[in-house]
Amino acid sequence: MKHTARNVTIAIGLAMTSLLATGADGPTRTMANVPYPEGYRQWQHIKSMVIQPGHALFGSFGGIHHLYGNPAAVQGYTRGRFPDGSVIAFDLLEAASGDNAIVEGPRKVLGVMVKDAKRFAATGGWGFEAWAAGEPGKPVVGNTAPSACFDCHTSQKDSDYVFSRLR
Amino acid sequence: MKHTARNVTIAIGLAMTSLLATGADGPTRTMANVPYPEGYRQWQHIKSMVIQPGHALFGSFGGIHHLYGNPAAVQGYTRGRFPDGSVIAFDLLEAASGDNAIVEGPRKVLGVMVKDAKRFAATGGWGFEAWAAGEPGKPVVGNTAPSACFDCHTSQKDSDYVFSRLR
Repeated sequence: MKHTARNVTIAIGLAMTSLLATGADGPTRTMANVPYPEGYRQWQHIKSMVIQPGHALFGSFGGIHHLYGNPAAVQGYTRGRFPDGSVIAFDLLEAASGDNAIVEGPRKVLGVMVKDAKRFAATGGWGFEAWAAGEPGKPVVGNTAPSACFDCHTSQKDSDYVFSRLR
Repeated sequence: MKHTARNVTIAIGLAMTSLLATGADGPTRTMANVPYPEGYRQWQHIKSMVIQPGHALFGSFGGIHHLYGNPAAVQGYTRGRFPDGSVIAFDLLEAASGDNAIVEGPRKVLGVMVKDAKRFAATGGWGFEAWAAGEPGKPVVGNTAPSACFDCHTSQKDSDYVFSRLR
């Protein structure tokens, strides 16, 4: 399980590394208008993970991240196939370490996967976008989604291109 | 903020230390029948924190914990006063550290606060219970709630006896 979790982390990280490298100066419009996930903080919490200093992906993904799923996505997690309308949010926060504890800090990036089998047929039925600091005006993926996101998600074809599992 | 977070952690820990010391051999009935929070994993995720080896409370609270609130509790977090029917769940999981990352492990304990101003008037309007490993058949608080839980929560009277804040 631990080994799998590490692989998942690495895969997520590789998928989004070029994404974050784009930074706040990246594209100003989103890939095929992937919408900002309004209200995602009220969606079901799927799972969480912390990436610490020393991890190969710390530069891009250091911090504590939470995954949230809208109701359609929760169906997908339990059934193994995600229906159109599924949205998965990846919420990455800074992790402040001290006194042998880790607390949540400011948001670093908010990423999403949106399922629409026809519209996003070229990328497994999923549209991808992310916003620096979680700010709707700062998309960082845009048309780079195939290389910045999907290339790595292809390894998860058997789980409908989704790395995370519902805890 | 960090300092406050630490204080909150310590306070939570002290409040529940004797609770966990009771273990699975504790009371078999709950304090005034505080119910198991069915469906709490679908409630809103309030915030998370990790308590690591070396922390004074690691023995009792080591791991990663998530707080969830039912709809009434979410109102309470935003208004500062929690209406009757509010339930806050404290979900403590083992944290597996390795390869400079922390992933979630098995559940250690599930605790709750349930608001009913009349029924729990003696403890600030809140009923308290917790279940070892999150198993409904293993309550560990019972009638010890006033000393095991409430005594420490009195420090948070200004926020209706609640330590956590909605992130």
